[in-house]
Amino acid sequence: MDRKTVSIVGASGYAGGEFLRLALSHPYLEVKQVTSRRFAGEPVPFVHPNLRGRTNLKFVSPEKLEPADILVLALPHGVLAREFDRYSALAPILVDLSADFRLKDPELYRKYYGEHPRPELLGRFVYAVPEIHREALKGADWIAGAGCNATATLLGLYPLLKAGVLKPTPIFVTLLISTSAGGAEATPASHHPERAGSIRVYKPTGHRHTAEVVENLPGRPEVHLTAIATDRVRGILMTAQCFVQDGWSERDVWQAYREAYAGEPFVRIVKQKKGIHRYPDPRFVQGTNYADIGFELEEDTGRLVVMVAIDNLVKGTAGHALQALNIRMGWPETLGLDFPGLHP
Amino acid sequence: MDRKTVSIVGASGYAGGEFLRLALSHPYLEVKQVTSRRFAGEPVPFVHPNLRGRTNLKFVSPEKLEPADILVLALPHGVLAREFDRYSALAPILVDLSADFRLKDPELYRKYYGEHPRPELLGRFVYAVPEIHREALKGADWIAGAGCNATATLLGLYPLLKAGVLKPTPIFVTLLISTSAGGAEATPASHHPERAGSIRVYKPTGHRHTAEVVENLPGRPEVHLTAIATDRVRGILMTAQCFVQDGWSERDVWQAYREAYAGEPFVRIVKQKKGIHRYPDPRFVQGTNYADIGFELEEDTGRLVVMVAIDNLVKGTAGHALQALNIRMGWPETLGLDFPGLHP
Amino acid sequence: MDRKTVSIVGASGYAGGEFLRLALSHPYLEVKQVTSRRFAGEPVPFVHPNLRGRTNLKFVSPEKLEPADILVLALPHGVLAREFDRYSALAPILVDLSADFRLKDPELYRKYYGEHPRPELLGRFVYAVPEIHREALKGADWIAGAGCNATATLLGLYPLLKAGVLKPTPIFVTLLISTSAGGAEATPASHHPERAGSIRVYKPTGHRHTAEVVENLPGRPEVHLTAIATDRVRGILMTAQCFVQDGWSERDVWQAYREAYAGEPFVRIVKQKKGIHRYPDPRFVQGTNYADIGFELEEDTGRLVVMVAIDNLVKGTAGHALQALNIRMGWPETLGLDFPGLHP
Amino acid sequence: MDRKTVSIVGASGYAGGEFLRLALSHPYLEVKQVTSRRFAGEPVPFVHPNLRGRTNLKFVSPEKLEPADILVLALPHGVLAREFDRYSALAPILVDLSADFRLKDPELYRKYYGEHPRPELLGRFVYAVPEIHREALKGADWIAGAGCNATATLLGLYPLLKAGVLKPTPIFVTLLISTSAGGAEATPASHHPERAGSIRVYKPTGHRHTAEVVENLPGRPEVHLTAIATDRVRGILMTAQCFVQDGWSERDVWQAYREAYAGEPFVRIVKQKKGIHRYPDPRFVQGTNYADIGFELEEDTGRLVVMVAIDNLVKGTAGHALQALNIRMGWPETLGLDFPGLHP
Repeated sequence: MDRKTVSIVGASGYAGGEFLRLALSHPYLEVKQVTSRRFAGEPVPFVHPNLRGRTNLKFVSPEKLEPADILVLALPHGVLAREFDRYSALAPILVDLSADFRLKDPELYRKYYGEHPRPELLGRFVYAVPEIHREALKGADWIAGAGCNATATLLGLYPLLKAGVLKPTPIFVTLLISTSAGGAEATPASHHPERAGSIRVYKPTGHRHTAEVVENLPGRPEVHLTAIATDRVRGILMTAQCFVQDGWSERDVWQAYREAYAGEPFVRIVKQKKGIHRYPDPRFVQGTNYADIGFELEEDTGRLVVMVAIDNLVKGTAGHALQALNIRMGWPETLGLDFPGLHP
Repeated sequence: MDRKTVSIVGASGYAGGEFLRLALSHPYLEVKQVTSRRFAGEPVPFVHPNLRGRTNLKFVSPEKLEPADILVLALPHGVLAREFDRYSALAPILVDLSADFRLKDPELYRKYYGEHPRPELLGRFVYAVPEIHREALKGADWIAGAGCNATATLLGLYPLLKAGVLKPTPIFVTLLISTSAGGAEATPASHHPERAGSIRVYKPTGHRHTAEVVENLPGRPEVHLTAIATDRVRGILMTAQCFVQDGWSERDVWQAYREAYAGEPFVRIVKQKKGIHRYPDPRFVQGTNYADIGFELEEDTGRLVVMVAIDNLVKGTAGHALQALNIRMGWPETLGLDFPGLHP
Repeated sequence: MDRKTVSIVGASGYAGGEFLRLALSHPYLEVKQVTSRRFAGEPVPFVHPNLRGRTNLKFVSPEKLEPADILVLALPHGVLAREFDRYSALAPILVDLSADFRLKDPELYRKYYGEHPRPELLGRFVYAVPEIHREALKGADWIAGAGCNATATLLGLYPLLKAGVLKPTPIFVTLLISTSAGGAEATPASHHPERAGSIRVYKPTGHRHTAEVVENLPGRPEVHLTAIATDRVRGILMTAQCFVQDGWSERDVWQAYREAYAGEPFVRIVKQKKGIHRYPDPRFVQGTNYADIGFELEEDTGRLVVMVAIDNLVKGTAGHALQALNIRMGWPETLGLDFPGLHP
Repeated sequence: MDRKTVSIVGASGYAGGEFLRLALSHPYLEVKQVTSRRFAGEPVPFVHPNLRGRTNLKFVSPEKLEPADILVLALPHGVLAREFDRYSALAPILVDLSADFRLKDPELYRKYYGEHPRPELLGRFVYAVPEIHREALKGADWIAGAGCNATATLLGLYPLLKAGVLKPTPIFVTLLISTSAGGAEATPASHHPERAGSIRVYKPTGHRHTAEVVENLPGRPEVHLTAIATDRVRGILMTAQCFVQDGWSERDVWQAYREAYAGEPFVRIVKQKKGIHRYPDPRFVQGTNYADIGFELEEDTGRLVVMVAIDNLVKGTAGHALQALNIRMGWPETLGLDFPGLHP
């Protein structure tokens, strides 16, 4: 098959760098250019030491970007929206990893991000959690990858709400996130001696991904997010607290997940009665595109605890973006996403 | 002042070892004996390398225990209840670190632990979260230290329920716990290559400390606990999700905490608008008897997120037990508990 | 091409499990059986959670092992030597990951391991550090994978000794190793609360891999090993302290490495004057088959510090074994070994 | 006893902050002022969250410094030397934690640090490793605390060289250091996602502390330092590789250490034949002023491996500075330094 050229804008950051890692091993993709304002002129491995010996590419400044088949945009939130015309002229297919075009509802956007510079484009991108939006992605030229925390939350809750399993009470979502979520820029808060060993409550309330979650869940339920950062570098463990409808049982929960995810190549239900790895654990999806989903139902109260583990940079960002692109291009969906993770 | 003799039963474990560390530096305590079935005959530092050069004591088997002024019991749950008569004959003052005598309600005990061998003794121990039960502790000869997760939860929620701040909706408590909570016994699950880097959901539902929490909160509210173990060795971060009554504000929450904790030597309210350490973090209470408490109120929804950070082995176990003992003996409450923690 | 069947003996351990991970993604290998005495009957992911959804294999007891094209043996040291006839009858090609047949010299074996049960077989296996023993591996039916620490040491020192760069003074090798090096069996020493955060001197003197190192270095130089375990789960950082011959310069060191490793697919020379990742770091080879090699020469003293970073389970064990097998079978050497590692 | 006032210059850094922590608990010290240019006006706990509730002090800018009995200087290297007259006029007793006045030999200083602005002052400060320089410290008004790596190296090697145990061959010292050694300033290299999980070779050659080590060891032996940073926040593990004189045995090594350190309150010899904590480990001296020293002798080669574990910020910096000050003031040497460390 003919290879398609892809260029990555913002490739010295963590999301762009991760897409680059995946793209370099993808049989149908040829990475044409990688941009970085700060590291223009430096070889890629100067920033991403894992890619030593894997590529001879050097970063170029964004001004030097040339046309390509596909453009992956890993820019700080807000930049693409402001410079949309320039970037959209360079490639027929755009994959955006920022939050700029994830939402449809301008009111929701305003509440969490402020005024949108191009509100008429909201709703023009296809929002991508591949397991949920596969059909729409098949014809999508503009793709907006879901946020990492939203991905974990949606994968865990969507099937339950679709199947009507849950009571209409508030759902509380606790997200254990990682330090790479803060991006590649060093700050006093990310200084290793300050950060290592800490458990830092990052967003107890008001998390921006709430908007995506609410907009993409059937019935727009009341969902409350709290994000707490451990000192893992990668990974998300989402736990959701909710209640099943009276009379519904564990079997119904199983059923909802099976209906939604049977045959999904990257979703694994993890729920063991014995052994030492009984529930989803972000450690064992590190570097992979898997979403491990588990749950526990407290019989006497009907409380359901849902757990989802993903790698925020892969299944939460670059991996699901590539998965979405594979879908869009009609390629096998798992191409370039086949790493199984490590143990121990 | 005359020193009092204290012996520690089960001193090779983590709870007993921590009480020993504190007792060795306490000006009014003289550690007489430390028992360990497994390490009888070994010097203390063979098990607790931090105590090299601090004591010449050797472990003795529990059978060799002699009378003392105070007996601190750090036995596996269930052992003291079974052998109560023997131990209670050895000292007029008992401080129990297990769950055996924490509850008053035999029904609650049965639900979470099974049949109690000495139900007539339930209610005879004074349950100890010193900030909440100080008055009762002043005359207590038998003290039952609160569970570590219960301590964190009660310290965060008690003032709010007492002041009537919260709506009567279910309260969801997520406890980020540590690997020392599993005790000193090696198991396949605690094998370092399996455990390091993991975030392990430990008890999504059915946590035993629920019983203590419910029994000690005003009005017995509906509280749901989920315990998740990071790979920290020590520390708990409790977050609670609840709602304030309509019309109540951040100021009312402040007020509730101030009323409860003004003048408390070991409670610190941590809530900064700027800086890199804005909320409670278990790292900065490690090794200390502090409970750091913070909160955030989401104005448009009334959702209140409460955060409490403690060291599970100090403020959660041995430290609050010593604090309770200081209260009981009429000694200054902070004696032997004055370590401020480390930064960085 | 026809796939070859491979069975893995001892596949629930870390070395065997890692070979299994690699073999499951290898286009020319078909994993036929995986044995484990302890976990016989359990599905593979019960032990290796990273392999959920990747295989339907269950462990079988070693007694049920059937003939295969290739047998990979990941048994505790000493077992294969004792049961050699049984295992060697099952497959024409044996790849042993233990120390049983690495040495040629029975005296050396005796000094470090005791009496060998089958001394006549010493020297019959081809010792495998693929970069050094490639030619011999092409015709090897019995392959003995090098020890992980020996691999790192040999890769760093072999080119220097071959090129005559070093003075004949004692060479001091410090190996920073990981907790997975201790194997999959839980012990009191591997209990997470004891092990996490520790830097544990493991073998200050008398390390067994000294034998392999000395036997495989040109001129049998005096090499002293000290092994210190950090609390990383995977990885080795080897540093060697030696002196270059008078008058020799950094250029000669470069030259020696270039001659030895130009064109090697898995060796990368890492030596940057600027940037934050200037020397080899085990983190960035984790999960990969790379050996990153760097050095620094102190001009006024002639002291040369050599650094090698590998993943002990991949390049140090299962990865180089697969690389050796690829060589033996005439397959492309990098097959199944192409993972680039992660950043961050 | 009358309390002495102490002011700390550079108290928002890690060395100054650690001295502050210790001084706040010292019965004879009253902290008068703490300076920080960057955080002037902020309360101390804004920077050092462990000191919440322990002090009401706010940082002041260095210009506002007033006279005090004792001035502790924790400035970046070079600053005190340049501004010496101003600071020395403020207090009769100076304790400097920088490298400015550690050396006596201007040539050595030039080689490692460049030109000294006040060479006539070199040799006027008493260099402080309290166990080695106690006598000189008794009358010292100007004290230069030893460097952290030098402290670990000197404590391990001094007794051996003094007793003539070692052969006059080069001594190789490998220092496993921590991220706090890099100071409190955030840099791209200290960004948590880049730093966590890394083992970073920091100074393979040319380490500045070599100068102090050589100047303070009997006979000025040839000592080579290599510093490697794990991702611990605190702690140093020094290992030294050397050879004992022919015919000398383990007993002679013991004897040398006993002669040097019998009765030393902060030196512990750690060398167990069994158990899981057999050698010095920086984890178990964290937060303490202990130096744990161990060794292993390889009988057939005479190779001696010496190990020393200290906390770089306590015994390596602020702790030994306070110990030196206690000596100078005639106070009990252990005052304010009595924390035993934590286990687990």
